[in-house]
Amino acid sequence: MSYATARLPREKVLRDPVHNYIYVQHQVILDLINTKEFQRLRRIKQLGTASLVFHGAEHTRFAHCLGVYEITRRICDNFQRNYPTRTPGDGGWDDHERLTALCAALLHDIGHGPYSHTFEHIFHTDHEAITVEILTSPQTEVNQVLRKVSPTFPQEVASVIQKTYPNPQVVQMISSQIDADRMDYLLRDAYYTGTQYGAYDLTRILRVMRPYQGGIAFAMNGMHAVEDYIMSRFQMYQQVYFHPVSRAMEVILDHLLARANELYQTGQSDESFIPHLLLPFFNHEFDLQDYLYLDDGVLTTYFTHWRQSPDDILADLAHRFLDRKPLKSAVFTPETQPLIAPLRDMIKSVGFNVDYYTATDNSYDLPYDDSYDPKMEHPLTQIELQQPDGSLAELSTVSDLVNALRGKFTGDQRFFFPKEMLNPGDDAPDLFQPIYNDFGRYIQNNQLIQPKEN
Amino acid sequence: MSYATARLPREKVLRDPVHNYIYVQHQVILDLINTKEFQRLRRIKQLGTASLVFHGAEHTRFAHCLGVYEITRRICDNFQRNYPTRTPGDGGWDDHERLTALCAALLHDIGHGPYSHTFEHIFHTDHEAITVEILTSPQTEVNQVLRKVSPTFPQEVASVIQKTYPNPQVVQMISSQIDADRMDYLLRDAYYTGTQYGAYDLTRILRVMRPYQGGIAFAMNGMHAVEDYIMSRFQMYQQVYFHPVSRAMEVILDHLLARANELYQTGQSDESFIPHLLLPFFNHEFDLQDYLYLDDGVLTTYFTHWRQSPDDILADLAHRFLDRKPLKSAVFTPETQPLIAPLRDMIKSVGFNVDYYTATDNSYDLPYDDSYDPKMEHPLTQIELQQPDGSLAELSTVSDLVNALRGKFTGDQRFFFPKEMLNPGDDAPDLFQPIYNDFGRYIQNNQLIQPKEN
Amino acid sequence: MSYATARLPREKVLRDPVHNYIYVQHQVILDLINTKEFQRLRRIKQLGTASLVFHGAEHTRFAHCLGVYEITRRICDNFQRNYPTRTPGDGGWDDHERLTALCAALLHDIGHGPYSHTFEHIFHTDHEAITVEILTSPQTEVNQVLRKVSPTFPQEVASVIQKTYPNPQVVQMISSQIDADRMDYLLRDAYYTGTQYGAYDLTRILRVMRPYQGGIAFAMNGMHAVEDYIMSRFQMYQQVYFHPVSRAMEVILDHLLARANELYQTGQSDESFIPHLLLPFFNHEFDLQDYLYLDDGVLTTYFTHWRQSPDDILADLAHRFLDRKPLKSAVFTPETQPLIAPLRDMIKSVGFNVDYYTATDNSYDLPYDDSYDPKMEHPLTQIELQQPDGSLAELSTVSDLVNALRGKFTGDQRFFFPKEMLNPGDDAPDLFQPIYNDFGRYIQNNQLIQPKEN
Amino acid sequence: MSYATARLPREKVLRDPVHNYIYVQHQVILDLINTKEFQRLRRIKQLGTASLVFHGAEHTRFAHCLGVYEITRRICDNFQRNYPTRTPGDGGWDDHERLTALCAALLHDIGHGPYSHTFEHIFHTDHEAITVEILTSPQTEVNQVLRKVSPTFPQEVASVIQKTYPNPQVVQMISSQIDADRMDYLLRDAYYTGTQYGAYDLTRILRVMRPYQGGIAFAMNGMHAVEDYIMSRFQMYQQVYFHPVSRAMEVILDHLLARANELYQTGQSDESFIPHLLLPFFNHEFDLQDYLYLDDGVLTTYFTHWRQSPDDILADLAHRFLDRKPLKSAVFTPETQPLIAPLRDMIKSVGFNVDYYTATDNSYDLPYDDSYDPKMEHPLTQIELQQPDGSLAELSTVSDLVNALRGKFTGDQRFFFPKEMLNPGDDAPDLFQPIYNDFGRYIQNNQLIQPKEN
Repeated sequence: MSYATARLPREKVLRDPVHNYIYVQHQVILDLINTKEFQRLRRIKQLGTASLVFHGAEHTRFAHCLGVYEITRRICDNFQRNYPTRTPGDGGWDDHERLTALCAALLHDIGHGPYSHTFEHIFHTDHEAITVEILTSPQTEVNQVLRKVSPTFPQEVASVIQKTYPNPQVVQMISSQIDADRMDYLLRDAYYTGTQYGAYDLTRILRVMRPYQGGIAFAMNGMHAVEDYIMSRFQMYQQVYFHPVSRAMEVILDHLLARANELYQTGQSDESFIPHLLLPFFNHEFDLQDYLYLDDGVLTTYFTHWRQSPDDILADLAHRFLDRKPLKSAVFTPETQPLIAPLRDMIKSVGFNVDYYTATDNSYDLPYDDSYDPKMEHPLTQIELQQPDGSLAELSTVSDLVNALRGKFTGDQRFFFPKEMLNPGDDAPDLFQPIYNDFGRYIQNNQLIQPKEN
Repeated sequence: MSYATARLPREKVLRDPVHNYIYVQHQVILDLINTKEFQRLRRIKQLGTASLVFHGAEHTRFAHCLGVYEITRRICDNFQRNYPTRTPGDGGWDDHERLTALCAALLHDIGHGPYSHTFEHIFHTDHEAITVEILTSPQTEVNQVLRKVSPTFPQEVASVIQKTYPNPQVVQMISSQIDADRMDYLLRDAYYTGTQYGAYDLTRILRVMRPYQGGIAFAMNGMHAVEDYIMSRFQMYQQVYFHPVSRAMEVILDHLLARANELYQTGQSDESFIPHLLLPFFNHEFDLQDYLYLDDGVLTTYFTHWRQSPDDILADLAHRFLDRKPLKSAVFTPETQPLIAPLRDMIKSVGFNVDYYTATDNSYDLPYDDSYDPKMEHPLTQIELQQPDGSLAELSTVSDLVNALRGKFTGDQRFFFPKEMLNPGDDAPDLFQPIYNDFGRYIQNNQLIQPKEN
Repeated sequence: MSYATARLPREKVLRDPVHNYIYVQHQVILDLINTKEFQRLRRIKQLGTASLVFHGAEHTRFAHCLGVYEITRRICDNFQRNYPTRTPGDGGWDDHERLTALCAALLHDIGHGPYSHTFEHIFHTDHEAITVEILTSPQTEVNQVLRKVSPTFPQEVASVIQKTYPNPQVVQMISSQIDADRMDYLLRDAYYTGTQYGAYDLTRILRVMRPYQGGIAFAMNGMHAVEDYIMSRFQMYQQVYFHPVSRAMEVILDHLLARANELYQTGQSDESFIPHLLLPFFNHEFDLQDYLYLDDGVLTTYFTHWRQSPDDILADLAHRFLDRKPLKSAVFTPETQPLIAPLRDMIKSVGFNVDYYTATDNSYDLPYDDSYDPKMEHPLTQIELQQPDGSLAELSTVSDLVNALRGKFTGDQRFFFPKEMLNPGDDAPDLFQPIYNDFGRYIQNNQLIQPKEN
Repeated sequence: MSYATARLPREKVLRDPVHNYIYVQHQVILDLINTKEFQRLRRIKQLGTASLVFHGAEHTRFAHCLGVYEITRRICDNFQRNYPTRTPGDGGWDDHERLTALCAALLHDIGHGPYSHTFEHIFHTDHEAITVEILTSPQTEVNQVLRKVSPTFPQEVASVIQKTYPNPQVVQMISSQIDADRMDYLLRDAYYTGTQYGAYDLTRILRVMRPYQGGIAFAMNGMHAVEDYIMSRFQMYQQVYFHPVSRAMEVILDHLLARANELYQTGQSDESFIPHLLLPFFNHEFDLQDYLYLDDGVLTTYFTHWRQSPDDILADLAHRFLDRKPLKSAVFTPETQPLIAPLRDMIKSVGFNVDYYTATDNSYDLPYDDSYDPKMEHPLTQIELQQPDGSLAELSTVSDLVNALRGKFTGDQRFFFPKEMLNPGDDAPDLFQPIYNDFGRYIQNNQLIQPKEN
């Protein structure tokens, strides 16, 4: 029996609060979990700054990746039991694809670093490219395990993640509107934040999935289960992922890293403390190994040093991040956007550097996107429902609910500013009081407004 | 209205997966949560190395402290509603004690540092003494908040934690066999590990608690709920807290810090990397601020550096910790303990430094201890059941189940050694093979045994 | 202390799987629960024929009524704690209304009989009128308890249920789009059916409710919680309440009672068995006591007798109901409705009495109805969101999601027919085979279709 | 493919709150569920009078039987996947046994009638014998389905239930200390009562089960999971099954049926109402069909009639049962048992018929019984733990906890009497007041006591 197909003599289990058990049945999977690149994911939080709002949400990318693996394993089991291929091209499931699917599921996020979104913004890294590099670079333990399956296996697994793998069923298990990735993170984030919005019915969704030639469809009588999933996703975005305080903390993080970078680029760094592990990124000369040294703890350790920096802005932003002092925010619209410039001026006039103490951002999500746009790098797949007679119908053509949500913009745009503008505190100079008073007139019900004339 | 009694105009809530919501009703509590000393607890895991076995268990001391606060708040609510004092000394609850109890509950663990147990072992810190210092030292934000209540309030809260506070009801809420601390961590650890053993019935326990002159008792008809709690605690110890792999990782952590310390003390540290934040501890000259800089991320960041150390032992132990390569272990008894010495010799003869690659430890817990031992620094209180006519009965005198467990030793003693002794791997020198073979004869069913003669 | 305000010396609890505990704090409530009219609700299933599809859903109206009481109690607690009235007409909560609200909540469904919907259809009873009669008729134990509060109290409680009570806050607690009644049954039906669709976040909904002059509104920042509730309701309707098999069993029940009634009216009843407790209803001469003798068991006991009736139709329908042999059904549209007549002819031609073996029905629900229609007997209230500055906004004007669902028809219309038409069985006469074949051509994917020409 | 092995073209599922889904994969199982004898179980409550204490516990034997089937199915799946037999007698699982095991699991309780325990007591029926009769009598639909598998199949399935089937693995799945029957009812009763005591970890128990020659053992490392199960069982007995109010209602039921029987036997029945379906039992001439007509609703319908009986005792007991007016009870010991006779005299002297208004009962359970008593009709099997090297150890020899509970009596004995003895009410004759006062002196803390001399 080859390494590729070697089942463990007895399956191993990992206890997981979301899925109860993660079942490991292949030696390859066990070996991948034990690589240093995968173990590193224990030190990277899944939700980044959201744990500063939902204090229970300290779960890691390690746990999420195991969950994606487990859901994929269950899909394969169901497909193999109920919808095996009988003749090539019949749209059934070919269980020879199982190991490729499982490895892609397990490793799909392995290129993530600490606070990925922000880190990438400042240092121009790309976690998807790094994922592929980890899989295909001969220096990694992950690659060494994958190569034992076959010389081409690392690239095959990578191609699933890159969505270029020929079998669309395998690709859609990992990347589609209802894929194992989203299915795990919605449940897991709901469990760890303590919200119940993401608690759709996984068992039922898995039951109504079925393979076809073009990928994965859902039984027509499972439409309401799919709707429920879409709604859960919508709720998680509204209530967790777009939470304004979480975004405010992310703004601080972004500005903090930007400030450190700027000080370094302009030769103003404090020489008494050297952030060794970030230097390759400041210098734009990092290699894969440099990247793999990073984790959440490295960044917060540097922040602990920086809070004592002689640079006031760096020190203050580090304090605000570590001690959780979020910026305030207000929603703006195209109509009220022009008000931001004068507000920035006020903020500046009381002494804040507006580059580091204000920001605007956009949150949005398309709760269901049925458009296949070939220009998109990774076009989202449609959700197809399969009628009893085998024909397919795109979800929004049969679901009133989803049709109602189709392409609807559901996020908001916010302007972030220091809390002190609204609550200056007792020791604020009297001189500035009129400015604070004026500022306050522009904010009502957490919205930017054009104040009434006095 | 004074700061001490100031209720928030509208109560605030924090979403918590275990208690659903944490209700914050006093300005004092909100201010304490926002101190930097309390926020620091977000960066310290509740279960330390256990998260390396139960990957879901990444929850922090921050969340636990909020949970202890919330349970205490509910106890106070119940006591106030159903058992208020009417005449001094009648054993009822005096709600003037509420704020003291709530603050003590919230802050009881604030002196914890990263991987406290091990850290204290190596660096001789004491998290309980530091807790008191954080409360009473004028330099901390916590102290500044507490002092706003009254000049003596910091010391009063500290005395609850030190168990010298005069009202035993308040002390027992925070420290007794069924206190808010244990009640929270059993539920929380069960939730985050994904085990169900700790899921006793909190609502019912809270309902049967009642104050009396000597502290807190439980209604007689709640005996089975109390038994269920005792059993849940027993199960959590057996299955989570005493887990041999978690203990094996703790051995590695302990030896890793010991090695770093030894290298420093003997002038052998690698000069290219200076662990600034640990130096005060290496030098036995740390102050409170030094301590407060530490968190889990600081230690793992240093481990990331150390895994490249020129010292092979330091580097290897850092790798084993970060990449989760636990030692193996076997249970020994007084009879088989003498076998450990020859086994250590074998381990040494294949090249391991036995000081850093072997250990023994003891896990034990008294699932229910009814002995009041005045020599103990912190004698555990008994659990008293209150008959309908008001008389008290110690739990084990009425519960067959608890009586059966009384004073029973339930842990084990283990000898830890490198996994390589049992699985030397393909590249182990042939020369050592007889040693490995011999070693293996001493281990059967995870126990040390006297091997049969050949 | 008067009976009206008498709190129990110590609150009592009833264990409830949905709310954990039901807290009983007033003697009045305890006495009402112990009346024979209320205990009777233990023998009436909440979901009627739905338990024949969801076998776990055997819960009773007794449990539901307790749940509605408990939710109302929590709303009162929250209102009293956070939004008490200070000056008349300020829109705050006056806790003198509590007992009225609690009694109305507990008793709102007390007039229900077995399989109410169907029973009312056949025998022209009216559970709402009977509820009022139970409250106000001096012969009932319920009335005797209520009268002890005050002579006018029975009528006051009745007027809440009739929506004529002057305080709209009390009325809306019991009857509105988000009332204690719906809140309980969605959670309870979800729990007992084992579906998760109804599991919205009760704690959060309760937290964002607030009283105002016009009734009860919801905090603006609770909009997503309200949306989630609306969606849960939508899902429960789609997946449970409108389930076609449950409706098919209700058709059988309806026809079974109709047949028994017809046989009685036409003097064809089997004289060897007399359904004593139904006679007053056959004779249109029932009084309140006759009604209160009925429960689910009485009906099924009569069905057990009727399955041996000499009347073939009565016997067969009783068998189909007791042994769960549902009719089949197919969805029809205005376009396909004309096909029903010829299909009925086919069914008749193979020997079925189409009056008893076919039916059409309509299921529909408006997931959110914002229209205030003064012509409706019980116009549904709108859901109002309260902005931070106190102004109100109707839900669908701020929620894209609810706006999308506004007034949308979400049910279906079905034609019910004997399963034998599609699966005639081995012993069907050859003669009829062409009819069965023809019939089958009209049904595709559970829809009525115009068959293609051959 | 034969009927015996015919898998459904696509597995069917039944939604179940406890197991999420019940998976039906064989035509035989689907056909059995659809028999009238099995559907009848929908009308028989699992917990009888316990639902009068735990109002949520209205679940039926129908649901329980499906749950036992589902657990058995999962055990078979696990055994087949991980422990298949390879050579005869190797102790592995032979999947040819699957259908026999599944049918026995599904049907093991099919002979139950309404309130079985009490009914059997009064009418000398035997649900186990009736179960065998339903399986083997050619007149039943169940038998007709089973015979389609093979002529001997009905008897084979019956022999599993009778514990005479040759394969002990199959027998122990259905009947042993940790069997599918107990595993389901503990979880199900916990779910429906709303207690959490029965919520042991099913997934983990299933995972550590393994077949061996002598039956089914449990992996040594699953010992704590087994302990947890034993403790859950203990808790359910203490808190649910032995609940004194539930037992008090069972006393009333017993006396009610006994009174009806006595009136019939002595020719004193009310002739205006004939309980047709009970006559065969009054006459000791019932056949299987008579038995199958009975269900909970039949009995309560008769009670509704009897509450208007001219016989005061029958009418009053029917009222007490339907309106839930339990007897009071007090625990007695061998020492206090002699007090019962004088107490009965007092009860008699205020006018109660002590045969119908008093009772004593015994509740007890051996939480773990390791004794193999060959004289027992159905000796309970021991729980065996399997060491890694294959050797077995009886649970109590390795578990301190279970050893502590071994053979320990955990129930109590109670004397039941009318509540009026303690709370005579305002309209009790003054004459009797001294008797009531005297009676009350014998009851303290719910115990019988020898009152102190005055």
